[in-house]
Amino acid sequence: MKKYQLMAPGPTPVPSEVLLAMARPIIHHRTPEYAALFTEVRTGLKRLVQTRQEVLTPACTGTGAMEAAVANTLSAGDRVIVVNAGAFAQRWLAIARAYRLQIVELAAPHGETVPAERVAEAVRANPDVKAVLVQHSESSTGVLHDVRAYAQVTAGIDTVLIVDAVSSLGIADLPMDAWGVDVVVSASQKGLMLPPGLGIVALSDKAWRANARSTSPRFYLDLAEERKYAEKNEARFTPAVSIMVGLREVLRMIEAEGLANVFRRHDRLSRATRAGAEALGLRLFVKTTPSPALTAIEVPAGVDADRVVEGFATSHNITIDGGRGPTKGKIFRIGHMGYAAETDVIIALAALEQVLADLGQPVDFGASVRAAQKVFVVGS
Amino acid sequence: MKKYQLMAPGPTPVPSEVLLAMARPIIHHRTPEYAALFTEVRTGLKRLVQTRQEVLTPACTGTGAMEAAVANTLSAGDRVIVVNAGAFAQRWLAIARAYRLQIVELAAPHGETVPAERVAEAVRANPDVKAVLVQHSESSTGVLHDVRAYAQVTAGIDTVLIVDAVSSLGIADLPMDAWGVDVVVSASQKGLMLPPGLGIVALSDKAWRANARSTSPRFYLDLAEERKYAEKNEARFTPAVSIMVGLREVLRMIEAEGLANVFRRHDRLSRATRAGAEALGLRLFVKTTPSPALTAIEVPAGVDADRVVEGFATSHNITIDGGRGPTKGKIFRIGHMGYAAETDVIIALAALEQVLADLGQPVDFGASVRAAQKVFVVGS
Repeated sequence: MKKYQLMAPGPTPVPSEVLLAMARPIIHHRTPEYAALFTEVRTGLKRLVQTRQEVLTPACTGTGAMEAAVANTLSAGDRVIVVNAGAFAQRWLAIARAYRLQIVELAAPHGETVPAERVAEAVRANPDVKAVLVQHSESSTGVLHDVRAYAQVTAGIDTVLIVDAVSSLGIADLPMDAWGVDVVVSASQKGLMLPPGLGIVALSDKAWRANARSTSPRFYLDLAEERKYAEKNEARFTPAVSIMVGLREVLRMIEAEGLANVFRRHDRLSRATRAGAEALGLRLFVKTTPSPALTAIEVPAGVDADRVVEGFATSHNITIDGGRGPTKGKIFRIGHMGYAAETDVIIALAALEQVLADLGQPVDFGASVRAAQKVFVVGS
Repeated sequence: MKKYQLMAPGPTPVPSEVLLAMARPIIHHRTPEYAALFTEVRTGLKRLVQTRQEVLTPACTGTGAMEAAVANTLSAGDRVIVVNAGAFAQRWLAIARAYRLQIVELAAPHGETVPAERVAEAVRANPDVKAVLVQHSESSTGVLHDVRAYAQVTAGIDTVLIVDAVSSLGIADLPMDAWGVDVVVSASQKGLMLPPGLGIVALSDKAWRANARSTSPRFYLDLAEERKYAEKNEARFTPAVSIMVGLREVLRMIEAEGLANVFRRHDRLSRATRAGAEALGLRLFVKTTPSPALTAIEVPAGVDADRVVEGFATSHNITIDGGRGPTKGKIFRIGHMGYAAETDVIIALAALEQVLADLGQPVDFGASVRAAQKVFVVGS
């Protein structure tokens, strides 16, 4: 028996309690029972996103929520800045092209970030720029971009800051209102420990003003209409009922742990994973601020990272992930987000040692686990 | 104890076997396990939709799938015919307006249909018409429109026939290829007995040619991109994994019963419900072909239909639904689709008798159940 362990950078494991709550007989979305659930979820989401705005929950995955952010605040011909340092930034570019926006691309190599000064410069050079599109956690590379600093650039001007927080909501602190983020986009299958299929979107007052001006066609993901119904505590269309039921459970779990503790836990798991990798002589891929959602690790010379991923799967029944695009074969990525605990990191590092040994690398068995434990003991 | 019974015209109950399959630990969508599931689901869906085309499964509800059909085959300024005889037809109108189409509306009162001759006439009068948008089963009224006859109108011309089969797929026969339907749109929470959150879309060769010409902006629901990945048996984006897991179970159940038997069962439940209502002296709302998915029943003079719905909920713990718009207060609607059996109809009719009696109506107890039983005995 090899216990299955899902440690990809998303989707993440769903707690059994939540799976079983979702397995209860389905409820109709126009009943008092659903209304009570919706009230609780709406309140919980505002606390999670740290906003007084309505947090909308369209039935779609993260990409749908990203498109909703664009389609609801921008119009064909609008100029936008895209911070591009990874695969999910390329999704912003693809959406922007689909909506015929004019794109100012600020590129950085995978594993790096774009400093806020470059964004400020681009905004000055393009005073008509309508939006800045960024990732918070770029899970293809493991970088955490400095959204707080980006928000200082867009503060006080009409440009809206649209943040993909798919792999950061409930993982890394992102106080939407306090930082002045205009659109927070997320999804159910990462920090929220749920199956994929639910989008999360919240808009600031500035973003709602942009919404009123935007002429892009939209219906299913029309957020103004969605908000109208949510404010009446009603579902506009049939919602993703079972995931909403799971969401209530998850929000209760997060509430019980405390949001600040949830962030601390992710930070601790992240530091422990990095310490473990370094104790094995491996290099971390991220030289700037790492995302607490996952750790991207370079393989030693002569090793194909995809063989590491394969070794985790076949010898240990653990799903992790490799690199994408320019990093394919060069890095592997271990997710430690959502329903992730210290034991998961210990398991992953122990497996990593064995996989490296299987690939013919010299390994000081126990070294990475020891390094992680030191983080946990100090961190606790 | 009052056992809960969901008999709304959608969402419909999910079988416990399916709920429990969906409660298994979540699987990653880029693994051999998911690939095997996807192969089986893709094959099963082609049989269900009765097409040789790829059947796509975007993570969205039925409205998202409806919008995908429009956004992927039409462009701003295109002229379309909308068959409007109910609330879901109004959704076609709203989507068409959002995409700036020119609309030729063929209206009929709720409870009635638009004969194919009127569609043919409208096509002749508007030779530039790019699409005809219709419902198969209009679940707001309980009418089954004659899609087969509509398809004869669009056969041999470039106009595409786009059919909302949300409450007919797996309920009423709709052989896409044999009838020449160009786009079939459906969703998970009706005939497919699943939670809401999965769209179903299939396009004919003619519709794919329209797709190549269409310039509407789209990304998340870009069906050509979606098909590219599906044909490689890969997920384009993170799919609604748990519903896909449930879908495999449901397709096996439908396969085991036999698709023709599934249609026969719905027809039998539908006839029994109608016979039961008529045995109580109630009038059926639909004077044309009724949908086998649900039965819309008029209330006796002086009774508010919403009190009937309320009586089902409070005294019997059964969720049914009332009328919408012009029929509000005048009709109630009993769903018998998806995971629905003869026993469910018996229960609903027995409850109906008691609810009517509670509302002060004279009731010959047992009359409706007897009428239903006669249908079941003859039908078996």
